[in-house]
Amino acid sequence: MIEKTKTPRVKPELNDKLPFGRYLADHLLEINWTAEAGWDLPRIKPYGPFIMDPSTSVLNFAIECFEGMKAYKNAKSEVLLFRPLRNMERMRSSGKALCLPDYDPEEFLLCIVELLKLDRDWVPQKEGFSLYLRPTFIGDSDMFELGRPQAAKLFVINSPVGPYYPTGFKPVALYCDNTAARAYPGGMGHYKLGGNYAAGIKHSERIAKLGYQQMLWLIDDNVTEVGTMNFFVRWRNENGVEELITAPLDGTILPGVTRESILSLVRGWGEILVSEKKFSITDLVKASEERRLIECFGCGTAAVVSPVEKFFYNGKDYTVPLALGNSGELTKRLWDKLIAIQYGITKHPWCYVID
Amino acid sequence: MIEKTKTPRVKPELNDKLPFGRYLADHLLEINWTAEAGWDLPRIKPYGPFIMDPSTSVLNFAIECFEGMKAYKNAKSEVLLFRPLRNMERMRSSGKALCLPDYDPEEFLLCIVELLKLDRDWVPQKEGFSLYLRPTFIGDSDMFELGRPQAAKLFVINSPVGPYYPTGFKPVALYCDNTAARAYPGGMGHYKLGGNYAAGIKHSERIAKLGYQQMLWLIDDNVTEVGTMNFFVRWRNENGVEELITAPLDGTILPGVTRESILSLVRGWGEILVSEKKFSITDLVKASEERRLIECFGCGTAAVVSPVEKFFYNGKDYTVPLALGNSGELTKRLWDKLIAIQYGITKHPWCYVID
Repeated sequence: MIEKTKTPRVKPELNDKLPFGRYLADHLLEINWTAEAGWDLPRIKPYGPFIMDPSTSVLNFAIECFEGMKAYKNAKSEVLLFRPLRNMERMRSSGKALCLPDYDPEEFLLCIVELLKLDRDWVPQKEGFSLYLRPTFIGDSDMFELGRPQAAKLFVINSPVGPYYPTGFKPVALYCDNTAARAYPGGMGHYKLGGNYAAGIKHSERIAKLGYQQMLWLIDDNVTEVGTMNFFVRWRNENGVEELITAPLDGTILPGVTRESILSLVRGWGEILVSEKKFSITDLVKASEERRLIECFGCGTAAVVSPVEKFFYNGKDYTVPLALGNSGELTKRLWDKLIAIQYGITKHPWCYVID
Repeated sequence: MIEKTKTPRVKPELNDKLPFGRYLADHLLEINWTAEAGWDLPRIKPYGPFIMDPSTSVLNFAIECFEGMKAYKNAKSEVLLFRPLRNMERMRSSGKALCLPDYDPEEFLLCIVELLKLDRDWVPQKEGFSLYLRPTFIGDSDMFELGRPQAAKLFVINSPVGPYYPTGFKPVALYCDNTAARAYPGGMGHYKLGGNYAAGIKHSERIAKLGYQQMLWLIDDNVTEVGTMNFFVRWRNENGVEELITAPLDGTILPGVTRESILSLVRGWGEILVSEKKFSITDLVKASEERRLIECFGCGTAAVVSPVEKFFYNGKDYTVPLALGNSGELTKRLWDKLIAIQYGITKHPWCYVID
């Protein structure tokens, strides 16, 4: 069911001052579920508030997971998504971890496509700009006993966003300590739960005061992720072999779509060894001290890739090389390649064209 | 500001069939905060839905913590709370961990007292029954960038609940494995976040199919909590000394009000050694095998104390003695003592009398 807005919202100017998530597109997608009746018909309707019972499970037990995706517009004014089924599948998996109901990922994607068709004027046609999509899945039972939610809601809201690097790459400084953990074995680190992000805010604030932008997360001594991104290191390993390494999907790492795409691209190029395996902060420090570190970067939907200039550990800063001044060579090459695919400049099967 | 309901809700019958959290009292307390204006005036108003923007921080990043408390009614029809400032202080601490704003615990309690005065007819005057209070604290910013919430909401809803053990103690069977974790060092286990509970539902379902009621949570091999309760073991330790032991508040354990009260009571009695220190599942198994285990119990607001009949670990069930048939002696003694304080049968400074 589609109900078009009668009072279109004001679109922001597409300039460097566009704040993330401040402007919301005209329509939202909402799909409700109950244990008795199953999935209700999807509804696309004017953006507006939800009526929520104070006893509902998302408010009482934080039964919530989400996705982040972007819609781009190419020169032909076609709207493009980047591997969107990956996000549909991941949220399905996050939902299962919270005992939320299963759904059909392809059908959910088709609903999002309908939403985007209606709000296609909200997808910016300008380099670096995109429409950020926020699919969210919440428990919506109207009682506060802890247990499998008897009602749930899937919804999608969208917000035009500007370039992550309006003036070119800005490499980040990482802060690493053993007192804070993002995830842990047997926990929920491989699901995109709001709670995994909520826990990080206080650490971000703490290290910002010290002049660092992102936490470098460890489990025991193993390097896992950075801030809200997956993390890659390019080094010559202890055998002297050039290697691109990232932590393996052992249940503590978010299975990032950008992460997977980078692994696939670099493996496809066949130029260097690509490894998904554990490595420790001690390994990283040693590589830095022995000048074997070539570059490091975070990756995710928001930033695509995020070059690293240094990391702090155990009382000391370790510089990370930036061969191109503000990024490493591979970081820049991956940025160029991914941006070209996402904006439809290069034809690629990962690019999903809406119309 | 107090707005009384014009349409009182139907009160449930106080019998064994009263479901937890199904019936909600007539009024709720709501206090809103914004970064610009600070705390707004507290409002007590008829129970009803919230109007929530889909982009708000609780729906997008699970910025949510809560408390569980009970109000009791004694023979003189006075309404009683059990150490309520402890809950106010703990939620303040949980809120800080999520970068929610600070509040005055005593003022918040006074607001709850006003709510209870208005809804005093909802506090059951019947043995084993009480009014369950659910204070909740959520991020309510209307934008979905990850960061310190610029708006927040404190609210309290109440629900009459029946006795946890309508037919006498029902000892629980615990399931322990190393594949699931409730908390971890550097994480959020010592805060009462919805996310800590959401993550446990799937494990509860998994072990229920195997005939067990509660997870016995480990960190590495150390015993931490059980289900959503703190956990106590009474044993003769390896030195042959009788000891009541529970995991220490090392940042992974919820600082339970019942836990603290039990420690205080048993220390006050001065009869056995009371220890807050780490002990492992191996220690527990060994104590069982060497017949040094005297009793085990969980504790928390909902159950008060919950006797344990056995625990499963590493392919095997270990029986826990139940000297009184359905509980250990200390478990029963603590139950009697705590219930007497909570229902105002014994005069005690922990009992907070409202009117």
